[in-house]
Amino acid sequence: MRAIALITDFGTADGYVGEMKAVLLDAAPAALPLDVTHDVPPGDVEAGAWVLGRLWGRMPPGTVHLTVVDPGVGSERRAVVAEAGGRWFVGPDNGLLTRVLGRWPAGEARRIDPAAVATGPVSDTFHGRDLFAPAAARLATGDAQGIGPPIDPGTLARLRLPAPRRHADRVEAPIAHVDRFGNLVTDLPAEWLPTEPVVEVGGRAIRGLARSYAARVAERGPLVALVGSGGTLEVAVAGGSAAGLLKVGRGDAVVVRAAATGRAGAKREGADGEGG
Amino acid sequence: MRAIALITDFGTADGYVGEMKAVLLDAAPAALPLDVTHDVPPGDVEAGAWVLGRLWGRMPPGTVHLTVVDPGVGSERRAVVAEAGGRWFVGPDNGLLTRVLGRWPAGEARRIDPAAVATGPVSDTFHGRDLFAPAAARLATGDAQGIGPPIDPGTLARLRLPAPRRHADRVEAPIAHVDRFGNLVTDLPAEWLPTEPVVEVGGRAIRGLARSYAARVAERGPLVALVGSGGTLEVAVAGGSAAGLLKVGRGDAVVVRAAATGRAGAKREGADGEGG
Amino acid sequence: MRAIALITDFGTADGYVGEMKAVLLDAAPAALPLDVTHDVPPGDVEAGAWVLGRLWGRMPPGTVHLTVVDPGVGSERRAVVAEAGGRWFVGPDNGLLTRVLGRWPAGEARRIDPAAVATGPVSDTFHGRDLFAPAAARLATGDAQGIGPPIDPGTLARLRLPAPRRHADRVEAPIAHVDRFGNLVTDLPAEWLPTEPVVEVGGRAIRGLARSYAARVAERGPLVALVGSGGTLEVAVAGGSAAGLLKVGRGDAVVVRAAATGRAGAKREGADGEGG
Repeated sequence: MRAIALITDFGTADGYVGEMKAVLLDAAPAALPLDVTHDVPPGDVEAGAWVLGRLWGRMPPGTVHLTVVDPGVGSERRAVVAEAGGRWFVGPDNGLLTRVLGRWPAGEARRIDPAAVATGPVSDTFHGRDLFAPAAARLATGDAQGIGPPIDPGTLARLRLPAPRRHADRVEAPIAHVDRFGNLVTDLPAEWLPTEPVVEVGGRAIRGLARSYAARVAERGPLVALVGSGGTLEVAVAGGSAAGLLKVGRGDAVVVRAAATGRAGAKREGADGEGG
Repeated sequence: MRAIALITDFGTADGYVGEMKAVLLDAAPAALPLDVTHDVPPGDVEAGAWVLGRLWGRMPPGTVHLTVVDPGVGSERRAVVAEAGGRWFVGPDNGLLTRVLGRWPAGEARRIDPAAVATGPVSDTFHGRDLFAPAAARLATGDAQGIGPPIDPGTLARLRLPAPRRHADRVEAPIAHVDRFGNLVTDLPAEWLPTEPVVEVGGRAIRGLARSYAARVAERGPLVALVGSGGTLEVAVAGGSAAGLLKVGRGDAVVVRAAATGRAGAKREGADGEGG
Repeated sequence: MRAIALITDFGTADGYVGEMKAVLLDAAPAALPLDVTHDVPPGDVEAGAWVLGRLWGRMPPGTVHLTVVDPGVGSERRAVVAEAGGRWFVGPDNGLLTRVLGRWPAGEARRIDPAAVATGPVSDTFHGRDLFAPAAARLATGDAQGIGPPIDPGTLARLRLPAPRRHADRVEAPIAHVDRFGNLVTDLPAEWLPTEPVVEVGGRAIRGLARSYAARVAERGPLVALVGSGGTLEVAVAGGSAAGLLKVGRGDAVVVRAAATGRAGAKREGADGEGG
């Protein structure tokens, strides 16, 4: 069964998501509307891009991703569909595809033509229902051409996400996402980490990598650094919130040094020594 | 695939919704249980009616709407099914259908006979699982007759929702719903609005209509009035909560005058002039 | 359509649930990923076991229950699948199956072999995606043997849940669950209750049983005791929270005496007399 995966910031209290699903069921009855999340913080395009970036490569080829975090609904931003890596993407052209396009160039992109896809009046405040859902239904039924004119995939909007950086004595990256557990997720790839890393964040230094959130925690503190399920560096507190403990958030710096040079760093935190 | 659309106030923490879905899957394996919302405020029949009122007309004909906001579960209120506009509705007879029946008369209605639909003991506290879900499954498999005796559709309960009113110098309507973004939604149809409206709510006056939440906001204030995705007047704050800013809620009055007569009104608020 | 029922503590904000669904759709395209809840309190295995215990017996035979509340992910706890009562269960071997196994012995159990089920690297922090979802997909496609070696079903972990107890003058049980409405749910079976019960909890005594939450409440107080939809004793406040009013929670004692001996109890609360 072909899925239409939904990522929105609509919340679930009002039934707005239901209105989108109604359009999908009506126009693409053989496709499965699949909830990924409707709890992206309102208007937070960067968080929406993070969720989509983690998801799309695991979905079956042919999946349609309907991503609506759209603070500019009704403004000049384009409404688009794009294909990348065998999956389809539908939504406002505001940077939601940044993490998809960073890994795979779009092979095709189209502007959504309201006259082509809409089945009734198009509200200026709910393109999710009136433009994006009808376009997603078209993609699910195999009709990309009927959505609107092709556009240059190179013109799709991208957020400027600060990339991890390598220096002579350290690697560093900002916190890219704080998840509901308070884990601090970066884009720093595991391969960049030194053998005996010291991870500095929020004025603390954490020695060594844990293998898991539940890994034994030394007496000196509850913080752990580890390679998370996205293959990148995370900082966590077992059974607690690292974001809360350290009072840091998205964009704050995480710096990693090799243990030899990291010793004269910030206040030292306990490490469990695993992998360190 | 025929959907059974779920609207409840059960929340998602306890698995009660899962128990209803279990009954649906067991008794109507070819139908798709579809989450609309489970976050209707507990016991808030009027909010449930609002969500259902927005949804049903967009769902494919044949859809079964299973709506359970049921503060009177176990009391004398009837358990019913009804057909209107080619869709089916199942739930307590407490006014949840008000906004459906206001647009389309029910063609058929039946009382749910516990002896006919229940497959086990009927709890007095969870008719959603023990009566409504079995009845919805019957409807999804095409067996309306087996649910219980017909009743007069004219006897279905309706809430007394104050209707928008026209006066010589103004139109007015109460706030019908406050959504998760804090937008104030009324039932005032767009066609009733004067060419140059001044919208008064919470002691403020907003001149002119914006086309969207993101429309440019004049320097004088962040409030916008606009025609929302339901085709009626809304008041919003771009990137914020109008309900929070104005300290108003459901039932509070929204008054609209033509600009000429609106000048001697409440404290004037900035307007973006679009459409005004 | 065979369902894979999901119970997790992942929340819905981050898309982690979506990553699990992606794996399911990819490996078992004919099965339906079904949300039961993702709002189990983080790491609360006992609450997860409660939700699963209410659900599984109502799901169609053959259903796969994918339950991931896994504070020990990456530690020594086993990853397992088990069959009981014609349904399948997948998750960490940490006691989540306690309430299933208390009613029905497992007929078969297997350890999940990462080498057998994983399609890529196995993260130490997200077995839900990398081990449990692939194993659930195998079960949904009928391949239990391919998951890993059989284990003794008698070795599956169980929580020590305090059982209801009968005494000469009273029956008692701890609060087993507090639901989102603040209802206090016990495991005390309805059959154990005396004809004229007095229910003591949080320093209050409630005379008689109500038939429903909405049952008429005597002038003396809003508390009601009733047999809930699980067939066990509950204490509730109509339109309010019993947990909040009484300041009690999971594990606190509920004691029931026959009215004759209950009179010299704690401060007496109003009862509606129904069934009493």
